[in-house]
Amino acid sequence: MSVRADLNISLDGYASGVDPTPENPMGADWDRLVAAYAATRTFRERVLGERSGEGTTGVDDAYAHDYFEGIGAEIMGAGMFGFHTYPDDPDWHGWWGDDPPFHYPVFVLTHTPRPTLEMAGGTSFHFLDASPRDALARAQDAAGGKDVRVGGGVRTVRAFLAEGLIDHLHVAVAPIIIGGGVSLWSELRGLESGCTVSSEVAESGTIHVTFRRD
Amino acid sequence: MSVRADLNISLDGYASGVDPTPENPMGADWDRLVAAYAATRTFRERVLGERSGEGTTGVDDAYAHDYFEGIGAEIMGAGMFGFHTYPDDPDWHGWWGDDPPFHYPVFVLTHTPRPTLEMAGGTSFHFLDASPRDALARAQDAAGGKDVRVGGGVRTVRAFLAEGLIDHLHVAVAPIIIGGGVSLWSELRGLESGCTVSSEVAESGTIHVTFRRD
Repeated sequence: MSVRADLNISLDGYASGVDPTPENPMGADWDRLVAAYAATRTFRERVLGERSGEGTTGVDDAYAHDYFEGIGAEIMGAGMFGFHTYPDDPDWHGWWGDDPPFHYPVFVLTHTPRPTLEMAGGTSFHFLDASPRDALARAQDAAGGKDVRVGGGVRTVRAFLAEGLIDHLHVAVAPIIIGGGVSLWSELRGLESGCTVSSEVAESGTIHVTFRRD
Repeated sequence: MSVRADLNISLDGYASGVDPTPENPMGADWDRLVAAYAATRTFRERVLGERSGEGTTGVDDAYAHDYFEGIGAEIMGAGMFGFHTYPDDPDWHGWWGDDPPFHYPVFVLTHTPRPTLEMAGGTSFHFLDASPRDALARAQDAAGGKDVRVGGGVRTVRAFLAEGLIDHLHVAVAPIIIGGGVSLWSELRGLESGCTVSSEVAESGTIHVTFRRD
Protein backbone atom coordinates (compact mmCIF):
# COMPACT_ATOMS: atom_id res chain seq x y z
CA MET A 1 0.00 0.00 0.00
CA SER A 2 2.50 2.55 -1.16
CA VAL A 3 2.13 6.12 -2.33
CA ARG A 4 3.13 6.73 -5.91
CA ALA A 5 3.65 9.65 -8.25
CA ASP A 6 4.40 9.75 -11.97
CA LEU A 7 5.30 12.88 -13.90
CA ASN A 8 6.49 13.83 -17.35
CA ILE A 9 9.27 16.40 -17.22
CA SER A 10 11.83 17.94 -19.54
CA LEU A 11 15.58 17.40 -19.22
CA ASP A 12 15.74 20.76 -17.44
CA GLY A 13 13.17 19.60 -14.89
CA TYR A 14 9.99 21.35 -15.97
CA ALA A 15 6.79 19.40 -15.68
CA SER A 16 3.81 19.09 -17.89
CA GLY A 17 0.48 20.50 -16.98
CA VAL A 18 1.61 23.80 -15.53
CA ASP A 19 -0.07 27.11 -16.21
CA PRO A 20 -2.94 25.79 -18.28
CA THR A 21 -5.02 28.24 -20.29
CA PRO A 22 -8.47 27.60 -21.73
CA GLU A 23 -6.91 27.52 -25.20
CA ASN A 24 -4.11 25.18 -24.19
CA PRO A 25 -5.16 23.58 -20.94
CA MET A 26 -1.98 21.61 -20.33
CA GLY A 27 0.54 24.30 -21.23
CA ALA A 28 2.48 25.12 -24.36
CA ASP A 29 4.93 22.23 -24.18
CA TRP A 30 2.54 19.47 -23.13
CA ASP A 31 2.51 17.72 -26.49
CA ARG A 32 6.27 17.35 -26.61
CA LEU A 33 6.53 16.34 -22.97
CA VAL A 34 4.02 13.53 -23.22
CA ALA A 35 4.54 12.49 -26.85
CA ALA A 36 6.20 9.19 -25.96
CA TYR A 37 3.55 8.36 -23.35
CA ALA A 38 0.67 9.35 -25.64
CA ALA A 39 2.10 7.07 -28.34
CA THR A 40 1.91 3.93 -26.19
CA ARG A 41 -0.66 1.24 -26.80
CA THR A 42 -1.69 1.44 -23.13
CA PHE A 43 -2.45 5.18 -23.32
CA ARG A 44 -4.36 4.78 -26.56
CA GLU A 45 -6.49 1.99 -25.13
CA ARG A 46 -6.91 3.18 -21.54
CA VAL A 47 -7.17 6.95 -22.00
CA LEU A 48 -8.35 7.45 -25.57
CA GLY A 49 -10.53 4.34 -25.57
CA GLU A 50 -9.15 3.11 -28.90
CA ARG A 51 -9.64 -0.50 -29.90
CA SER A 52 -7.15 -0.41 -32.77
CA GLY A 53 -4.36 -2.37 -31.12
CA GLU A 54 -1.96 0.34 -32.32
CA GLY A 55 0.66 2.20 -30.32
CA THR A 56 4.17 1.48 -29.06
CA THR A 57 4.79 -1.62 -26.98
CA GLY A 58 8.34 -1.06 -25.68
CA VAL A 59 9.78 0.45 -22.51
CA ASP A 60 7.46 3.47 -22.52
CA ASP A 61 4.46 1.19 -22.74
CA ALA A 62 5.67 -0.91 -19.83
CA TYR A 63 5.71 2.21 -17.64
CA ALA A 64 2.34 3.31 -19.00
CA HIS A 65 0.95 -0.10 -18.06
CA ASP A 66 2.40 0.13 -14.55
CA TYR A 67 0.87 3.58 -14.23
CA PHE A 68 -2.60 2.08 -14.13
CA GLU A 69 -1.85 -1.00 -12.05
CA GLY A 70 -2.83 -1.39 -8.43
CA ILE A 71 -4.10 2.12 -7.76
CA GLY A 72 -7.08 2.42 -5.41
CA ALA A 73 -7.39 6.19 -5.04
CA GLU A 74 -5.78 9.36 -6.35
CA ILE A 75 -5.04 12.85 -5.06
CA MET A 76 -4.69 15.83 -7.37
CA GLY A 77 -4.38 19.60 -7.07
CA ALA A 78 -7.09 22.06 -7.98
CA GLY A 79 -5.14 23.12 -11.09
CA MET A 80 -4.92 19.60 -12.47
CA PHE A 81 -8.65 19.19 -12.01
CA GLY A 82 -9.21 22.46 -13.88
CA PHE A 83 -10.40 24.82 -11.15
CA HIS A 84 -7.75 27.41 -12.00
CA THR A 85 -8.90 27.44 -15.61
CA TYR A 86 -12.66 27.31 -14.95
CA PRO A 87 -13.03 28.80 -11.46
CA ASP A 88 -16.55 30.12 -12.04
CA ASP A 89 -18.19 27.12 -13.70
CA PRO A 90 -20.33 25.33 -11.09
CA ASP A 91 -20.84 22.41 -13.49
CA TRP A 92 -17.14 21.83 -14.21
CA HIS A 93 -16.34 18.18 -13.70
CA GLY A 94 -12.76 17.86 -14.91
CA TRP A 95 -11.02 17.47 -18.27
CA TRP A 96 -11.87 13.82 -18.76
CA GLY A 97 -15.52 13.74 -19.90
CA ASP A 98 -18.31 11.74 -18.34
CA ASP A 99 -16.33 8.48 -18.06
CA PRO A 100 -12.92 9.49 -16.66
CA PRO A 101 -10.08 6.96 -16.92
CA PHE A 102 -9.57 6.67 -13.15
CA HIS A 103 -12.28 4.19 -12.06
CA TYR A 104 -11.54 4.91 -8.39
CA PRO A 105 -12.06 7.77 -5.90
CA VAL A 106 -10.13 10.95 -6.73
CA PHE A 107 -9.48 13.56 -4.02
CA VAL A 108 -9.12 17.09 -5.34
CA LEU A 109 -7.32 19.56 -3.05
CA THR A 110 -9.08 22.92 -3.12
CA HIS A 111 -9.75 25.78 -0.76
CA THR A 112 -13.35 25.94 -2.04
CA PRO A 113 -14.76 22.41 -1.73
CA ARG A 114 -17.87 21.36 -3.64
CA PRO A 115 -20.20 18.37 -3.31
CA THR A 116 -18.82 15.02 -4.41
CA LEU A 117 -19.26 14.15 -8.09
CA GLU A 118 -20.11 10.54 -8.88
CA MET A 119 -19.02 9.78 -12.43
CA ALA A 120 -19.42 6.75 -14.69
CA GLY A 121 -17.14 3.74 -14.39
CA GLY A 122 -16.49 3.98 -10.67
CA THR A 123 -14.75 7.34 -10.67
CA SER A 124 -15.80 9.81 -7.98
CA PHE A 125 -14.38 13.28 -7.36
CA HIS A 126 -14.15 14.38 -3.72
CA PHE A 127 -13.13 17.93 -2.86
CA LEU A 128 -10.95 18.49 0.19
CA ASP A 129 -9.46 21.54 1.87
CA ALA A 130 -6.75 19.55 3.64
CA SER A 131 -3.01 19.27 4.20
CA PRO A 132 -1.08 16.71 2.15
CA ARG A 133 -0.87 14.39 5.16
CA ASP A 134 -4.58 14.59 5.96
CA ALA A 135 -5.57 14.19 2.34
CA LEU A 136 -3.36 11.13 2.11
CA ALA A 137 -5.04 9.57 5.15
CA ARG A 138 -8.44 10.10 3.50
CA ALA A 139 -7.25 8.62 0.21
CA GLN A 140 -5.65 5.63 1.91
CA ASP A 141 -8.93 4.92 3.71
CA ALA A 142 -10.68 4.95 0.34
CA ALA A 143 -8.09 2.91 -1.54
CA GLY A 144 -9.19 -0.47 -0.21
CA GLY A 145 -5.67 -1.63 0.49
CA LYS A 146 -4.34 -0.60 -2.90
CA ASP A 147 -1.79 2.10 -3.68
CA VAL A 148 -2.55 5.81 -3.69
CA ARG A 149 -1.36 7.97 -6.57
CA VAL A 150 -0.51 11.63 -6.19
CA GLY A 151 -1.45 12.55 -9.73
CA GLY A 152 -0.32 16.13 -10.08
CA GLY A 153 0.22 18.87 -10.94
CA VAL A 154 3.83 19.40 -10.21
CA ARG A 155 3.31 21.76 -7.26
CA THR A 156 1.09 19.16 -5.60
CA VAL A 157 3.58 16.34 -6.17
CA ARG A 158 6.38 18.53 -4.86
CA ALA A 159 4.42 19.32 -1.69
CA PHE A 160 4.00 15.60 -1.01
CA LEU A 161 7.67 14.91 -1.82
CA ALA A 162 8.79 17.71 0.49
CA GLU A 163 6.91 16.05 3.36
CA GLY A 164 8.39 12.65 2.55
CA LEU A 165 5.01 11.15 1.69
CA ILE A 166 5.91 9.56 -1.68
CA ASP A 167 7.31 6.01 -1.65
CA HIS A 168 7.73 5.58 -5.39
CA LEU A 169 8.39 8.49 -7.75
CA HIS A 170 8.63 7.80 -11.47
CA VAL A 171 9.60 10.61 -13.82
CA ALA A 172 9.63 10.24 -17.58
CA VAL A 173 12.25 12.72 -18.77
CA ALA A 174 11.81 13.94 -22.34
CA PRO A 175 15.20 14.90 -23.84
CA ILE A 176 14.16 18.48 -24.53
CA ILE A 177 15.02 21.81 -22.92
CA ILE A 178 11.97 23.95 -22.12
CA GLY A 179 13.72 26.74 -20.28
CA GLY A 180 10.86 27.75 -17.99
CA GLY A 181 7.82 26.73 -16.03
CA VAL A 182 7.54 25.05 -12.67
CA SER A 183 10.48 22.81 -11.83
CA LEU A 184 9.77 19.48 -10.20
CA TRP A 185 13.10 19.49 -8.40
CA SER A 186 13.26 22.88 -6.70
CA GLU A 187 13.56 22.80 -2.91
CA LEU A 188 14.11 19.01 -2.98
CA ARG A 189 17.85 18.82 -2.28
CA GLY A 190 18.76 15.33 -1.11
CA LEU A 191 15.56 13.72 -2.38
CA GLU A 192 17.64 10.64 -3.22
CA SER A 193 18.56 10.05 0.45
CA GLY A 194 17.00 6.84 1.68
CA CYS A 195 15.95 5.91 -1.85
CA THR A 196 17.20 3.59 -4.52
CA VAL A 197 17.31 5.48 -7.80
CA SER A 198 17.24 3.57 -11.08
CA SER A 199 17.10 4.77 -14.66
CA GLU A 200 16.27 3.26 -18.01
CA VAL A 201 16.23 4.74 -21.53
CA ALA A 202 13.26 3.92 -23.77
CA GLU A 203 13.33 3.40 -27.52
CA SER A 204 11.77 6.86 -27.86
CA GLY A 205 14.71 8.50 -26.09
CA THR A 206 12.67 9.12 -22.95
CA ILE A 207 14.70 8.58 -19.78
CA HIS A 208 12.66 6.88 -17.05
CA VAL A 209 14.02 7.63 -13.56
CA THR A 210 12.52 5.97 -10.50
CA PHE A 211 13.09 6.85 -6.83
CA ARG A 212 12.02 4.00 -4.54
CA ARG A 213 12.13 4.48 -0.80
CA ASP A 214 14.36 1.81 0.77
CA MET B 1 37.30 19.07 -36.29
CA SER B 2 34.30 19.50 -34.08
CA VAL B 3 33.78 21.48 -30.90
CA ARG B 4 33.00 19.41 -27.84
CA ALA B 5 31.95 19.91 -24.26
CA ASP B 6 31.56 17.47 -21.39
CA LEU B 7 30.03 18.29 -18.02
CA ASN B 8 28.97 16.48 -14.88
CA ILE B 9 25.60 17.68 -13.65
CA SER B 10 22.96 16.65 -11.14
CA LEU B 11 19.49 15.44 -12.11
CA ASP B 12 18.26 18.95 -11.37
CA GLY B 13 20.77 20.41 -13.83
CA TYR B 14 23.44 21.88 -11.58
CA ALA B 15 27.01 21.52 -12.71
CA SER B 16 30.18 20.72 -10.89
CA GLY B 17 32.89 23.21 -10.37
CA VAL B 18 30.74 26.21 -9.51
CA ASP B 19 31.54 28.64 -6.72
CA PRO B 20 34.85 27.16 -5.71
CA THR B 21 36.40 28.24 -2.43
CA PRO B 22 40.02 27.80 -1.38
CA GLU B 23 38.88 25.14 1.09
CA ASN B 24 36.71 23.33 -1.44
CA PRO B 25 37.84 24.51 -4.86
CA MET B 26 35.26 22.59 -6.88
CA GLY B 27 32.20 23.30 -4.74
CA ALA B 28 30.45 21.38 -1.98
CA ASP B 29 28.86 18.72 -4.20
CA TRP B 30 31.78 18.06 -6.50
CA ASP B 31 32.64 14.67 -5.00
CA ARG B 32 29.14 13.29 -5.52
CA LEU B 33 28.82 14.77 -9.00
CA VAL B 34 32.01 13.25 -10.32
CA ALA B 35 32.16 10.06 -8.21
CA ALA B 36 31.38 7.77 -11.14
CA TYR B 37 33.87 9.52 -13.42
CA ALA B 38 36.57 9.60 -10.75
CA ALA B 39 36.09 5.85 -10.24
CA THR B 40 36.92 4.97 -13.85
CA ARG B 41 40.17 3.33 -14.81
CA THR B 42 40.75 6.05 -17.41
CA PHE B 43 40.48 8.86 -14.85
CA ARG B 44 42.73 7.06 -12.41
CA GLU B 45 45.38 6.52 -15.05
CA ARG B 46 45.12 9.74 -17.03
CA VAL B 47 44.38 12.28 -14.30
CA LEU B 48 45.73 10.71 -11.12
CA GLY B 49 48.65 9.04 -12.86
CA GLU B 50 47.99 5.70 -11.18
CA ARG B 51 49.53 2.57 -12.62
CA SER B 52 47.42 0.15 -10.60
CA GLY B 53 45.10 -1.00 -13.38
CA GLU B 54 42.21 -0.43 -11.01
CA GLY B 55 39.00 1.45 -11.64
CA THR B 56 35.71 0.74 -13.40
CA THR B 57 35.77 -0.38 -17.02
CA GLY B 58 32.10 -0.12 -18.04
CA VAL B 59 29.97 2.58 -19.65
CA ASP B 60 31.38 5.40 -17.51
CA ASP B 61 34.90 4.43 -18.48
CA ALA B 62 34.01 4.39 -22.18
CA TYR B 63 32.90 8.04 -21.90
CA ALA B 64 35.97 8.90 -19.83
CA HIS B 65 38.15 7.40 -22.55
CA ASP B 66 36.35 9.36 -25.26
CA TYR B 67 36.86 12.49 -23.19
CA PHE B 68 40.57 12.40 -23.84
CA GLU B 69 40.50 11.27 -27.47
CA GLY B 70 41.17 13.52 -30.42
CA ILE B 71 41.37 16.86 -28.60
CA GLY B 72 43.92 19.36 -29.94
CA ALA B 73 43.12 22.43 -27.82
CA GLU B 74 40.85 23.48 -24.97
CA ILE B 75 39.06 26.62 -23.85
CA MET B 76 38.14 27.25 -20.24
CA GLY B 77 36.77 30.10 -18.14
CA ALA B 78 38.77 32.06 -15.60
CA GLY B 79 36.92 30.35 -12.75
CA MET B 80 37.83 26.86 -13.90
CA PHE B 81 41.48 27.87 -14.14
CA GLY B 82 41.28 29.24 -10.59
CA PHE B 83 41.50 33.00 -11.11
CA HIS B 84 38.34 33.64 -9.09
CA THR B 85 39.78 31.71 -6.17
CA TYR B 86 43.34 33.04 -6.40
CA PRO B 87 42.95 36.42 -8.10
CA ASP B 88 46.01 38.01 -6.49
CA ASP B 89 48.56 35.24 -6.91
CA PRO B 90 50.85 36.14 -9.84
CA ASP B 91 52.37 32.65 -9.76
CA TRP B 92 49.07 30.75 -9.93
CA HIS B 93 49.26 28.18 -12.73
CA GLY B 94 46.03 26.20 -12.32
CA TRP B 95 44.82 23.35 -10.16
CA TRP B 96 46.68 20.62 -11.99
CA GLY B 97 50.28 20.85 -10.78
CA ASP B 98 53.37 21.12 -12.97
CA ASP B 99 52.33 18.38 -15.44
CA PRO B 100 48.67 19.06 -16.22
CA PRO B 101 46.67 16.27 -17.89
CA PHE B 102 45.88 18.29 -21.03
CA HIS B 103 49.04 17.90 -23.16
CA TYR B 104 47.78 20.53 -25.63
CA PRO B 105 47.26 24.32 -25.70
CA VAL B 106 44.63 25.59 -23.25
CA PHE B 107 43.02 29.01 -23.77
CA VAL B 108 41.82 30.65 -20.57
CA LEU B 109 39.22 33.40 -20.98
CA THR B 110 39.99 36.29 -18.65
CA HIS B 111 39.61 40.04 -18.60
CA THR B 112 43.14 40.34 -17.16
CA PRO B 113 45.43 38.35 -19.48
CA ARG B 114 48.88 37.24 -18.35
CA PRO B 115 51.89 35.90 -20.24
CA THR B 116 51.59 32.39 -21.64
CA LEU B 117 52.61 29.56 -19.30
CA GLU B 118 54.50 26.66 -20.86
CA MET B 119 54.00 23.59 -18.70
CA ALA B 120 55.45 20.08 -18.83
CA GLY B 121 54.05 17.45 -21.17
CA GLY B 122 52.97 19.77 -23.97
CA THR B 123 50.39 21.75 -22.01
CA SER B 124 50.47 25.52 -22.44
CA PHE B 125 48.09 28.05 -20.88
CA HIS B 126 47.23 31.07 -23.03
CA PHE B 127 45.20 33.92 -21.55
CA LEU B 128 42.66 35.66 -23.78
CA ASP B 129 40.22 38.51 -23.31
CA ALA B 130 38.01 37.44 -26.20
CA SER B 131 34.45 36.56 -27.19
CA PRO B 132 33.52 32.88 -27.41
CA ARG B 133 33.65 33.02 -31.21
CA ASP B 134 37.07 34.69 -31.33
CA ALA B 135 38.48 32.39 -28.68
CA LEU B 136 37.23 29.40 -30.64
CA ALA B 137 38.96 30.63 -33.79
CA ARG B 138 42.23 30.91 -31.85
CA ALA B 139 41.81 27.44 -30.36
CA GLN B 140 40.94 25.90 -33.72
CA ASP B 141 44.09 27.40 -35.23
CA ALA B 142 46.09 25.80 -32.43
CA ALA B 143 44.37 22.41 -32.52
CA GLY B 144 46.22 21.08 -35.57
CA GLY B 145 43.09 19.72 -37.18
CA LYS B 146 41.87 17.98 -34.03
CA ASP B 147 38.77 18.76 -31.98
CA VAL B 148 38.48 21.66 -29.57
CA ARG B 149 37.03 21.11 -26.12
CA VAL B 150 35.19 23.80 -24.19
CA GLY B 151 36.15 22.48 -20.80
CA GLY B 152 34.14 24.59 -18.39
CA GLY B 153 32.97 25.91 -16.06
CA VAL B 154 29.30 25.75 -16.63
CA ARG B 155 28.88 29.46 -17.41
CA THR B 156 31.55 29.21 -20.09
CA VAL B 157 30.00 26.12 -21.66
CA ARG B 158 26.58 27.77 -21.58
CA ALA B 159 27.92 30.87 -23.34
CA PHE B 160 29.27 28.70 -26.15
CA LEU B 161 26.03 26.69 -26.32
CA ALA B 162 23.95 29.87 -26.47
CA GLU B 163 25.91 30.97 -29.53
CA GLY B 164 25.51 27.58 -31.19
CA LEU B 165 29.25 26.88 -31.13
CA ILE B 166 29.17 23.36 -29.63
CA ASP B 167 28.79 20.41 -32.01
CA HIS B 168 28.88 17.64 -29.42
CA LEU B 169 27.68 18.10 -25.84
CA HIS B 170 27.99 15.19 -23.41
CA VAL B 171 26.52 15.49 -19.93
CA ALA B 172 26.98 12.85 -17.26
CA VAL B 173 23.91 13.20 -15.06
CA ALA B 174 24.34 11.96 -11.48
CA PRO B 175 21.00 10.80 -10.06
CA ILE B 176 21.09 13.27 -7.18
CA ILE B 177 19.19 16.48 -6.41
CA ILE B 178 21.47 19.36 -5.39
CA GLY B 179 18.84 22.08 -5.22
CA GLY B 180 21.06 25.04 -6.09
CA GLY B 181 24.06 26.34 -7.95
CA VAL B 182 24.46 27.31 -11.57
CA SER B 183 22.17 25.40 -13.92
CA LEU B 184 23.59 24.19 -17.18
CA TRP B 185 20.22 24.43 -18.89
CA SER B 186 18.97 27.91 -18.08
CA GLU B 187 18.34 30.14 -21.11
CA LEU B 188 18.87 27.21 -23.48
CA ARG B 189 15.28 26.47 -24.51
CA GLY B 190 15.22 24.42 -27.70
CA LEU B 191 18.85 23.31 -27.41
CA GLU B 192 17.79 19.97 -28.90
CA SER B 193 16.71 21.61 -32.19
CA GLY B 194 18.94 20.46 -35.01
CA CYS B 195 20.55 17.86 -32.76
CA THR B 196 20.24 14.15 -32.29
CA VAL B 197 19.95 13.44 -28.58
CA SER B 198 20.88 10.01 -27.24
CA SER B 199 21.04 8.68 -23.71
CA GLU B 200 22.56 5.69 -21.98
CA VAL B 201 22.55 4.57 -18.34
CA ALA B 202 25.84 3.38 -16.83
CA GLU B 203 26.28 0.62 -14.27
CA SER B 204 26.86 3.35 -11.67
CA GLY B 205 23.43 4.86 -12.30
CA THR B 206 24.90 7.85 -14.12
CA ILE B 207 22.80 8.89 -17.13
CA HIS B 208 24.93 9.92 -20.09
CA VAL B 209 23.09 12.28 -22.44
CA THR B 210 24.68 13.40 -25.71
CA PHE B 211 23.54 16.20 -28.04
CA ARG B 212 25.11 15.84 -31.50
CA ARG B 213 24.50 18.51 -34.11
CA ASP B 214 22.93 16.95 -37.22
